[in-house]
Amino acid sequence: MSNDQDGMGGADPQDQLNDLRMSEKALPLLNHVKQFIRDTVDPMHEEWLTLGEGHEDRWTYAPGQLEILQTAKDKAKEEGLWNFFLPDSETGEGLSNLDYAFIAIELGKSPLASQVMNCSAPDTGNMEVLERVGTPEQKEKWLQPLLDGEIRSAYAMTEPDVATSDAKNVSTSAVLENGEWVINGEKHYISGAGDPRCKIMIMMVKTNDDGERGRNHSQILVPMDTPGVEVVGPMHVFGDDHAPAGHMHIRLTDVRVPESNILLGEGRGFEISQLRLGPGRIHHCMRTIGKAEVALDYMVKRGNSRTAFGQPLSKLGGNLEKISRARIEIESMRLLVLKAAKAMDVLGNKEARIWVSMAKAAVPEKACKIIDQAIQIHGAYGMSQFTPLPDLYADVRHLRFADGPDEVHHMVVGRHELAQH
Amino acid sequence: MSNDQDGMGGADPQDQLNDLRMSEKALPLLNHVKQFIRDTVDPMHEEWLTLGEGHEDRWTYAPGQLEILQTAKDKAKEEGLWNFFLPDSETGEGLSNLDYAFIAIELGKSPLASQVMNCSAPDTGNMEVLERVGTPEQKEKWLQPLLDGEIRSAYAMTEPDVATSDAKNVSTSAVLENGEWVINGEKHYISGAGDPRCKIMIMMVKTNDDGERGRNHSQILVPMDTPGVEVVGPMHVFGDDHAPAGHMHIRLTDVRVPESNILLGEGRGFEISQLRLGPGRIHHCMRTIGKAEVALDYMVKRGNSRTAFGQPLSKLGGNLEKISRARIEIESMRLLVLKAAKAMDVLGNKEARIWVSMAKAAVPEKACKIIDQAIQIHGAYGMSQFTPLPDLYADVRHLRFADGPDEVHHMVVGRHELAQH
Amino acid sequence: MSNDQDGMGGADPQDQLNDLRMSEKALPLLNHVKQFIRDTVDPMHEEWLTLGEGHEDRWTYAPGQLEILQTAKDKAKEEGLWNFFLPDSETGEGLSNLDYAFIAIELGKSPLASQVMNCSAPDTGNMEVLERVGTPEQKEKWLQPLLDGEIRSAYAMTEPDVATSDAKNVSTSAVLENGEWVINGEKHYISGAGDPRCKIMIMMVKTNDDGERGRNHSQILVPMDTPGVEVVGPMHVFGDDHAPAGHMHIRLTDVRVPESNILLGEGRGFEISQLRLGPGRIHHCMRTIGKAEVALDYMVKRGNSRTAFGQPLSKLGGNLEKISRARIEIESMRLLVLKAAKAMDVLGNKEARIWVSMAKAAVPEKACKIIDQAIQIHGAYGMSQFTPLPDLYADVRHLRFADGPDEVHHMVVGRHELAQH
Amino acid sequence: MSNDQDGMGGADPQDQLNDLRMSEKALPLLNHVKQFIRDTVDPMHEEWLTLGEGHEDRWTYAPGQLEILQTAKDKAKEEGLWNFFLPDSETGEGLSNLDYAFIAIELGKSPLASQVMNCSAPDTGNMEVLERVGTPEQKEKWLQPLLDGEIRSAYAMTEPDVATSDAKNVSTSAVLENGEWVINGEKHYISGAGDPRCKIMIMMVKTNDDGERGRNHSQILVPMDTPGVEVVGPMHVFGDDHAPAGHMHIRLTDVRVPESNILLGEGRGFEISQLRLGPGRIHHCMRTIGKAEVALDYMVKRGNSRTAFGQPLSKLGGNLEKISRARIEIESMRLLVLKAAKAMDVLGNKEARIWVSMAKAAVPEKACKIIDQAIQIHGAYGMSQFTPLPDLYADVRHLRFADGPDEVHHMVVGRHELAQH
Repeated sequence: MSNDQDGMGGADPQDQLNDLRMSEKALPLLNHVKQFIRDTVDPMHEEWLTLGEGHEDRWTYAPGQLEILQTAKDKAKEEGLWNFFLPDSETGEGLSNLDYAFIAIELGKSPLASQVMNCSAPDTGNMEVLERVGTPEQKEKWLQPLLDGEIRSAYAMTEPDVATSDAKNVSTSAVLENGEWVINGEKHYISGAGDPRCKIMIMMVKTNDDGERGRNHSQILVPMDTPGVEVVGPMHVFGDDHAPAGHMHIRLTDVRVPESNILLGEGRGFEISQLRLGPGRIHHCMRTIGKAEVALDYMVKRGNSRTAFGQPLSKLGGNLEKISRARIEIESMRLLVLKAAKAMDVLGNKEARIWVSMAKAAVPEKACKIIDQAIQIHGAYGMSQFTPLPDLYADVRHLRFADGPDEVHHMVVGRHELAQH
Repeated sequence: MSNDQDGMGGADPQDQLNDLRMSEKALPLLNHVKQFIRDTVDPMHEEWLTLGEGHEDRWTYAPGQLEILQTAKDKAKEEGLWNFFLPDSETGEGLSNLDYAFIAIELGKSPLASQVMNCSAPDTGNMEVLERVGTPEQKEKWLQPLLDGEIRSAYAMTEPDVATSDAKNVSTSAVLENGEWVINGEKHYISGAGDPRCKIMIMMVKTNDDGERGRNHSQILVPMDTPGVEVVGPMHVFGDDHAPAGHMHIRLTDVRVPESNILLGEGRGFEISQLRLGPGRIHHCMRTIGKAEVALDYMVKRGNSRTAFGQPLSKLGGNLEKISRARIEIESMRLLVLKAAKAMDVLGNKEARIWVSMAKAAVPEKACKIIDQAIQIHGAYGMSQFTPLPDLYADVRHLRFADGPDEVHHMVVGRHELAQH
Repeated sequence: MSNDQDGMGGADPQDQLNDLRMSEKALPLLNHVKQFIRDTVDPMHEEWLTLGEGHEDRWTYAPGQLEILQTAKDKAKEEGLWNFFLPDSETGEGLSNLDYAFIAIELGKSPLASQVMNCSAPDTGNMEVLERVGTPEQKEKWLQPLLDGEIRSAYAMTEPDVATSDAKNVSTSAVLENGEWVINGEKHYISGAGDPRCKIMIMMVKTNDDGERGRNHSQILVPMDTPGVEVVGPMHVFGDDHAPAGHMHIRLTDVRVPESNILLGEGRGFEISQLRLGPGRIHHCMRTIGKAEVALDYMVKRGNSRTAFGQPLSKLGGNLEKISRARIEIESMRLLVLKAAKAMDVLGNKEARIWVSMAKAAVPEKACKIIDQAIQIHGAYGMSQFTPLPDLYADVRHLRFADGPDEVHHMVVGRHELAQH
Repeated sequence: MSNDQDGMGGADPQDQLNDLRMSEKALPLLNHVKQFIRDTVDPMHEEWLTLGEGHEDRWTYAPGQLEILQTAKDKAKEEGLWNFFLPDSETGEGLSNLDYAFIAIELGKSPLASQVMNCSAPDTGNMEVLERVGTPEQKEKWLQPLLDGEIRSAYAMTEPDVATSDAKNVSTSAVLENGEWVINGEKHYISGAGDPRCKIMIMMVKTNDDGERGRNHSQILVPMDTPGVEVVGPMHVFGDDHAPAGHMHIRLTDVRVPESNILLGEGRGFEISQLRLGPGRIHHCMRTIGKAEVALDYMVKRGNSRTAFGQPLSKLGGNLEKISRARIEIESMRLLVLKAAKAMDVLGNKEARIWVSMAKAAVPEKACKIIDQAIQIHGAYGMSQFTPLPDLYADVRHLRFADGPDEVHHMVVGRHELAQH
């Protein structure tokens, strides 16, 4: 980051990076989203939880759950609250990343809102990839039903036996034989692959052993029902298997898909990563701001409502300072995420990648700390199922690995800084 | 802590505080414990996990589990590896707190070792209380079967509606009527109360509304099967209900127990707390050192075995420094815990309480950080059920509330420091 | 901060808070300032240091220093680079706080630039106060020469015997006798009062003992040469007395000033504080961003140029991550400061005070950490006079007290957060 | 550190590591030292400061200062409070490292006590080296006057142009010509070399360019008055030049010393480092414990005596928790340092080096934080010359570089940990 990248005035294109206003056209949408969450999603979520009580078969949805979800989705689609996430796209709302950021912060506050408005990870990233690089056939077969919210999808990157934080370590192999890719390997933590609605995976595979280092890997479409795709079982996240969506362990044994299932072309896996990861990462960060807001809200409410040693907890010891620090970090994170989103709009995903890595390296770590402090002020109750805090914690803690661990993003930012001097 | 409390030489009784050696007589026991864990507990634990696979009724133990556990317990008892925890006691091993510390660190490394050797919380604290203040009848009825490992027990302190970090807030009431205490209220997070073997609770209740502030509360024995004791359901810890032992939510409606079930006497609840909490807290800290060792062990092994960007993870970026810091904190914590144990031996629980609060405020927080970093170096795998790390995390995170949240212990230490000047 | 304060779109006045662009009219000024620092201030600073070598009488400027400074000031005034700091003012440049922020970040990078362009603390705050509340006579006598850069000034708040972090503790008394205020008391850390050019102090005094709590204090003009004003000696900052400007200890014994020297009116001292402190605090934060940039620049340059254990220091151990974290914090702080400045422009100083407190509580603390890490990568050399780092450290460390310690600002932010719920 | 290194009982030699008691024979000495500091050193220090007031020639001692210091030294020597630091030595007190630790903690609390009892760095390290490896001639000429407190000495390691944190980078060359070593190069931060009493330096030099990597360097005795030794000037530490002792920049131009001035032998410089650095590092850590105690003492006293917002500062916001954390860290650090000292006694310096590195990496960093918080609770006054806090800060901050920066010690500890697995 050169010192001059910021603070440029009107004549300089960089200056736009500092205009972090939502567009006028998107504001009504934001208000609509907030109202829709309050009036439709939140009540549906209550009902969803009630329906889930006592449901025994954890790897299916409880009777009625998918129906009320679908009703809410239909309503969202009807009201035009659908597929916001695709910037500059004819298929989506055409929102800029910055506009979407304001909306995604709201989506992050509700566990079901993203899905209701068809803005859930990893579908969003998968749709973005298909929209950008898919062939007409791929789009028709997979993008359209995803855009319509009829199916769900997964993204298969992580592997059990190597450090996939360095993507060049990916070892699941795909070999071309008679017009088919034959895939063998294992994938871990494939989020959403347990969902009965999940029909397709985009998978990072190794298609070449000895080529140019950045050209050995490809991304490929693997339908869930392809013979040889075996769901070994769910991976837990802090003891929770997140059934029925799950984070699945998948084994691939002589899985055969058509040659045409490759995305963009052989050896172009990392190009697609660049494309997908920018938006995916920043969407995570946006939602995380919303989650941190929820945690702070819980922290303050508990602090105000409970008394010990003659004072409300909020004023006891260092708690008030912790609340202040949480607010300050949230506002700082919010601005950093907005700036990264704006950078993607103005500079393009590639040029904006340092801003994205800055947000991705900082936001989940800081949010984890805020959620942890919210838990602490609740006492043991804060770890229970009666607050959303442990789910928020597990979710945001997991983001410190997803789409690149903090350490890799710090490496990216640090190297860029060295290169500026 | 006056500056002169430490570092006193031979003539001063305080000096003994710096002799942190295990006694010669206890050393063979420590070695025996290590060998027993390696040869008996660890293999039994493996079998236990295998037996548990696919067991559907989560609130019972899987067939065979209790049997192999009992076999291991019988073997432990036969070999004299039993009830170490009671210092200066005829009923236990008669180990000093310091001697027990070295053993408890080992117990902390295994999820089942404490139970096999009848040294599990909250039974240990309950047995200590019964041993110190129980009537002969109370001892016969409850202490003996606990010492024999035939039943288990719970400790009921936390409540849903008030901040029980300030124990004077406890509101569950016990009113004497016709020679019986009539108890009404609710308790939260009663660990172990879901275990089918759990037969008795020691419960903090309010027996007086308007007396001298420290004399309004009592502790009372409440058998689990008393009419009016209702297990509302399990409280989760980061999404895990720890079935079948559980952390139960209990409602008490006109629960009647004999007048003689009171411990020590009406209004003496906080006296008992002083008695119980010292050992209970330091036992937690001891076991936590063992858990931090396990986490560091995992951190190093993963760091050595995985490679990214051309280097083993252990040498990548700041990881080596994180490993060093973990080792330094573990050794510092270990010494602090040993010193607190020694202080209990030399000064008695009451005089040693500042040392205990120092350990309790620092050790779980620092151990959480180490476990969290061990998770981070594993990537998402570190949160999965295939490492013990998420269980260790939830367990140690929970200790930042149990037996007084960190904040209360810092208050105790801080006030004592102010009073020294 | 209500969650809705951010992220508002076009129709909402709050939305402007997110437009952090410098105005088009101010951009040429920023470029002019950068060029002027490079071409005029930096060379003058080199000469200044050379002139200072071997100068014995530390409480005077070395011969020639004030002359070259004056030449630079004349040049700055001539080129219109003068008095930027006064927003919406006819006497100054009329820059908005946001526009000034971009400039002040640059000023912060050079030790003399602020003074050359007449934008030094505490003159800026004093001028702002005089401009807003001074009588025509006060303006003529003190504001005009300050605006012209002919004299300098001091602000006298801190006292040796009470905690003036709580301003209501200020005890220096002013009693009206025969049309004169008679002032008695002591003040500490009066920055700049040692400078031979310093002619006037604005002083917080107690004018009433038993009135309404917020109305007992006043601010008053005290010329340095008034009989009874005694400079007891300099206060050091980390061993440095910052001669000849100094941070003086001043004793006031029966100091008499005309009744008309009071500012705004008796009992209105805290009203003036509100007026002065917003801009003063945010100016400090702006300059601190520039100082953090200098530190990061030094960190990277040293890290790239030195080698140990076969690697450049910048890639050794956790250093690259430290560099990344510094960059991320600088960008986050920059955005937070810009937003606080914008809030002052849009909402007014009073409504913006939470934003200002957020910046003031966070920026100096974070900048201290960055400077400290820059020192660390230099080895002992980093503490020497051959890098600017120790001066930057002492300066920014001092900001954690100046204009309210961190703790008071966290209290302000925390209380506001509580009040939102 | 294998997990088994700690917690060993009677039969195991390692067990002694946990006996951190001062020896009975040393206890009276400790009490004597405390009383001597209170009765002799503290009053002399007061007088010393008074004598120094107004002394103009900063690079000499004020008239009378050295005389009262000498009187105190004579008294100390007469009372047998002299040269404690040399373990197992006939020339010193023969204290163990552990015994000395308790005394050094007390010495650390007073700025002059170490010197009065002839236990100042770097003289202690230099005497230890001469005692262990000096020839009879070297001992007679330099060790004896040092042991008698008649001269002082310096240690010359750091260089301006290379990262001497990696000692193999040392570039000052010594070439043997006609029975003399001819030395050329520059050294930085040679502490104490400005003192008029400083007569001798032990200097790390490069004596071979292309030998085995660890055998290219030697240590050599260079009298201060050798022709070609030029004191270029003082290096500051946070703006303070610590005149007249100073931290000097020294240039060596064709400096010639006899061949016999080499210590131990050519190419054995790093062997000597191992010898010297263990004790030197742990002595620093011991004294740092004393300094942290002083800081905590100031923190509590200020916190108890000042009031703001209706409460003593010590109970305001998070201050009480900060005080508690400081106490906990001090006790943890104290135990770690005692254990490292004990390890040196039991295992020898070489085997104990991991314990020493653990202490050196942790203690100064943690003490800096405590001193910084003590400063913060004082407000700006905490940075002034009227508390010892800024001197303590600069001193302890400097220890994060001296005798190896934190980072190098973490590397040592981390690598050892990796090697255990």
